[in-house]
Amino acid sequence: MKLEKLIGDRFKERPADCAIDSHALMLRGGYMKYVANGIYSSYTPLKRITRKIEQIIKEEMDAIDGQEVQFPVVMPASLWQESGRYESIGNELVRFTDRNKNPFVLGMTHEEAAVQLVREYGQSYSKYPFMVYQIQTKFRDEARPRGGLIRVREFTMKDAYSFHLSQEDLEEFYKRCYKAYERIYSRIGIPEVISVDSDSGMMGGSISHEFMLLTPIGEDSIAICRDCNYKANMEAAECVIHNKRDAISNSLSLVHTPNIHTIEEICSFFQTSKEKSCKAVVYQRNSDDAYIIVFIRGDLDVNETKLTNYLGFDIHPALITDKCGLNAGYIGPYKLDDNYVVLFDRSLENTNNLSCGGNISEYHYTGLDIERDIGQVEYHDFAKILDGGVCPLCGKPTITISRGVEVGNIFQLGTKYTKSMNMTYLDQDGNIKYPIMGCYGIGIGRLAASVCEANHDEFGPLWPMSIAPWQVHICAVRADNTDVKNCADSLYEELQNSGVEVIYDDRAVNAGVMFSDADLLGVPLRVIVSPRNLKENCCEIVSRDKSISMKEPLNFAKAKIIDLVANYQKVK
Amino acid sequence: MKLEKLIGDRFKERPADCAIDSHALMLRGGYMKYVANGIYSSYTPLKRITRKIEQIIKEEMDAIDGQEVQFPVVMPASLWQESGRYESIGNELVRFTDRNKNPFVLGMTHEEAAVQLVREYGQSYSKYPFMVYQIQTKFRDEARPRGGLIRVREFTMKDAYSFHLSQEDLEEFYKRCYKAYERIYSRIGIPEVISVDSDSGMMGGSISHEFMLLTPIGEDSIAICRDCNYKANMEAAECVIHNKRDAISNSLSLVHTPNIHTIEEICSFFQTSKEKSCKAVVYQRNSDDAYIIVFIRGDLDVNETKLTNYLGFDIHPALITDKCGLNAGYIGPYKLDDNYVVLFDRSLENTNNLSCGGNISEYHYTGLDIERDIGQVEYHDFAKILDGGVCPLCGKPTITISRGVEVGNIFQLGTKYTKSMNMTYLDQDGNIKYPIMGCYGIGIGRLAASVCEANHDEFGPLWPMSIAPWQVHICAVRADNTDVKNCADSLYEELQNSGVEVIYDDRAVNAGVMFSDADLLGVPLRVIVSPRNLKENCCEIVSRDKSISMKEPLNFAKAKIIDLVANYQKVK
Repeated sequence: MKLEKLIGDRFKERPADCAIDSHALMLRGGYMKYVANGIYSSYTPLKRITRKIEQIIKEEMDAIDGQEVQFPVVMPASLWQESGRYESIGNELVRFTDRNKNPFVLGMTHEEAAVQLVREYGQSYSKYPFMVYQIQTKFRDEARPRGGLIRVREFTMKDAYSFHLSQEDLEEFYKRCYKAYERIYSRIGIPEVISVDSDSGMMGGSISHEFMLLTPIGEDSIAICRDCNYKANMEAAECVIHNKRDAISNSLSLVHTPNIHTIEEICSFFQTSKEKSCKAVVYQRNSDDAYIIVFIRGDLDVNETKLTNYLGFDIHPALITDKCGLNAGYIGPYKLDDNYVVLFDRSLENTNNLSCGGNISEYHYTGLDIERDIGQVEYHDFAKILDGGVCPLCGKPTITISRGVEVGNIFQLGTKYTKSMNMTYLDQDGNIKYPIMGCYGIGIGRLAASVCEANHDEFGPLWPMSIAPWQVHICAVRADNTDVKNCADSLYEELQNSGVEVIYDDRAVNAGVMFSDADLLGVPLRVIVSPRNLKENCCEIVSRDKSISMKEPLNFAKAKIIDLVANYQKVK
Repeated sequence: MKLEKLIGDRFKERPADCAIDSHALMLRGGYMKYVANGIYSSYTPLKRITRKIEQIIKEEMDAIDGQEVQFPVVMPASLWQESGRYESIGNELVRFTDRNKNPFVLGMTHEEAAVQLVREYGQSYSKYPFMVYQIQTKFRDEARPRGGLIRVREFTMKDAYSFHLSQEDLEEFYKRCYKAYERIYSRIGIPEVISVDSDSGMMGGSISHEFMLLTPIGEDSIAICRDCNYKANMEAAECVIHNKRDAISNSLSLVHTPNIHTIEEICSFFQTSKEKSCKAVVYQRNSDDAYIIVFIRGDLDVNETKLTNYLGFDIHPALITDKCGLNAGYIGPYKLDDNYVVLFDRSLENTNNLSCGGNISEYHYTGLDIERDIGQVEYHDFAKILDGGVCPLCGKPTITISRGVEVGNIFQLGTKYTKSMNMTYLDQDGNIKYPIMGCYGIGIGRLAASVCEANHDEFGPLWPMSIAPWQVHICAVRADNTDVKNCADSLYEELQNSGVEVIYDDRAVNAGVMFSDADLLGVPLRVIVSPRNLKENCCEIVSRDKSISMKEPLNFAKAKIIDLVANYQKVK
């Protein structure tokens, strides 16, 4: 199509509220428009990109025997009540009532709808395994949308659901899907995506993986071992601590510590390291504000996901009031009132000579030995893994922490949904059983933004050929020159007739404007027809990433361009 | 794919709650599943059909210079407040609040979102005309979903919005879109769709057309002239009445009419025809229950759409209480309290000697002459056109009323949205102007159901080749016979390799089950491989509509089938 007719404005200035490049470039390039917090409309270039991504995903899902279906966006609350998620999911799930006051939800994921669709079909073992998938709009009322398409409230997602007779069969299919995901990332131009162990969160189930594009702008922290193959989301990464008790346990003594509050101040006051302090981190249960106190080694932080998973309910950082009985800044495990849920992190196991709060204003203890002073306690893993920490797989202190954007996830769900929604089948011996499920998601818009994030320069995106909005961008520099116009017109015509997707800029603007617009559209191949080139009977072919730059005789231009389009991915 | 693996159940029994055939067949054939009132999930066969319909629509929209975009499903209320529709639309518009208590709506149409997307882009006259479209899920909280996919609450729709500098330019584009719609209906296999003048309803604007598939199960009534080209939705069709006054106006007299209530009873009592009676039809305004009384000739009915359009507010049939001052069954225009909005239909113009209610219990008047007894009143067209009525275009009494399903609509919107949402452009002389809009909708699911409604027999749908879920259905009758299995397998393989979409039934079921399943899937070409055919070294090729039935030597079968698929539409 002609660039002159392309709807949407392109501009130079980086919008003020863009924290990340892909967001800025996709606004600057006329890809999308803000409608509300976390809600965007797409212009044609982005729509063309997402259509291509969807097609690639569709091909890969079909290749692993997926059957495309469609679930509703709007679902009756009753469906989510069956699974229990109507109650267990918080504000992210939009709830509303229809004209007859019946409660409904907006789909943020479709496990319930998938079970509802196949519950009758799957009554005999002979139908298994099978997988259904859809590509559809979803809405998740995120508290903090950010980064343009990286974290939105409304998004298009491919979500797939598989059903199996055995855990082994699920695992086999899980591997096939895992490989399909790798092919998807490779085909859309981000083969560098890695998979990491992940926390299953509200989906339920045990084993799950996230696919991560490592990038400083990512909102996830990934623990990667430099030495072995270990890779995990920090939310799922076990924090391994090897403590060694001092030979002698000093006696416990209460010390007046006026104006001493933080771990740093305490350690400086007692002249000990943070590893020798026992820190209190306090939360409250969302439902009734009951207090939960986690004791953890002073140098570590609590991973709230691990804590929430252990507790089985939602929590928030505590508000410590005068009436609650806790002395903010002076909370310790010794002689603590038993009104609270008290938990101990594994980092406190096998330690002694710790400092901790005295549960009295302006007093701390030294010489705490938990086994001696408090007795047998259970230790659990609540701590965030540290950069330089011990790898849970190989045991070496070789963990590094990187940032990543999650561009897909796969879950082994087990029977959480089939049991709660009473989906059963008869096995070969006539026994009633619950099928085992897996689910597999990819957000389309976030994928487009991630490709842009991984492939851009300061002037615009560098779209891979496979998902670029167009394959070739023709710039007719000085289109008022009849020769230029005729030559560019016929090249445009011929390429289109050969099935090449062309955006054609024949506007009466200078080359600077033309090229900066072309940079923003990020089309992989650019063909420049100009008076200067025509003097040599050539056109110029350059790639957006500058790896190709050639003059091609006009006679051969069309064939050359078609060849470059067809073999672009291989060339790169 | 193999039919054995196709998810979804097929069954013989017509479900009890299906009023129309397409609904019953699409449930019986495993096309869709009920989720909630007016909300369905789609299985793979329907998803394949709708994908093909969408692709055809997309091609036709691109061909008239449409640019595909995407608007959000969830929109901030503020956008709909700008246009005024947040208030003016009733319960069909779903409203809810997000986690921060901000009001949102679910998109049922996207005029507001379209204006928001292009408001800045369209600031210069040089950008016009342009059209954007999307294919997307919508939600409309219908009071009475019915007929499966014919009237649902959640649906996928192609909606397009065009922007113009002048009414002439809009009309020119409107014609192009009109023709694109005709091509769409033709390509998907219902070329018999007609266009009719329609009421613009809540969309605003003046000229609009609906595309109608005439079918007894349609919920719209269409007035069609047998003699000229006039075609209009009954809601938009002008009711033309030619009255002739009696030479002598009798005097007005009040008559005791005990137990006389209905028009029939009155006319029988006075021994006059219905045309000589003046009927009262009473409504109330939705907002405050104020009464509106429409007087109309006794043989006619009020068209509520015309009345609502005239009034400019929503109404409902009145509840006549003891306190309201109206005498139910005895309401007439003479000596009626002036507490009510009183309207006269044009059918009462140029009449005399009418009977009417006396506004006193058990009394009627005879000899009413409105001009004489009431004075000058305004007459408006509120009546439903009748079968056998006068054609508003050619003036002959040649109107017939047919039923139809609306399968698309196009509207000339004028400046309703651009004005209310303050979208302006600078014209060539530097004047600020409002662009003129058109909008163009097609519901995908309803289209699929309509094609089924127009093309089915008692055994299943007869899908046109262009949108059929598969092109060829191979039945391997007695697949336990090695020769049958090998022959069918290799035909399946070869056809798929040639790009033919094949569903392959090699189940160990009898031919009856196989063929009835094939009938339900409605694939246009069926290839039967059976021991009997193989004896003649043939396979059987039959079309679902029985117009083709041949034995083809195996050597030539593949080529013959490919040829039939390619030329099927032309052949038919």
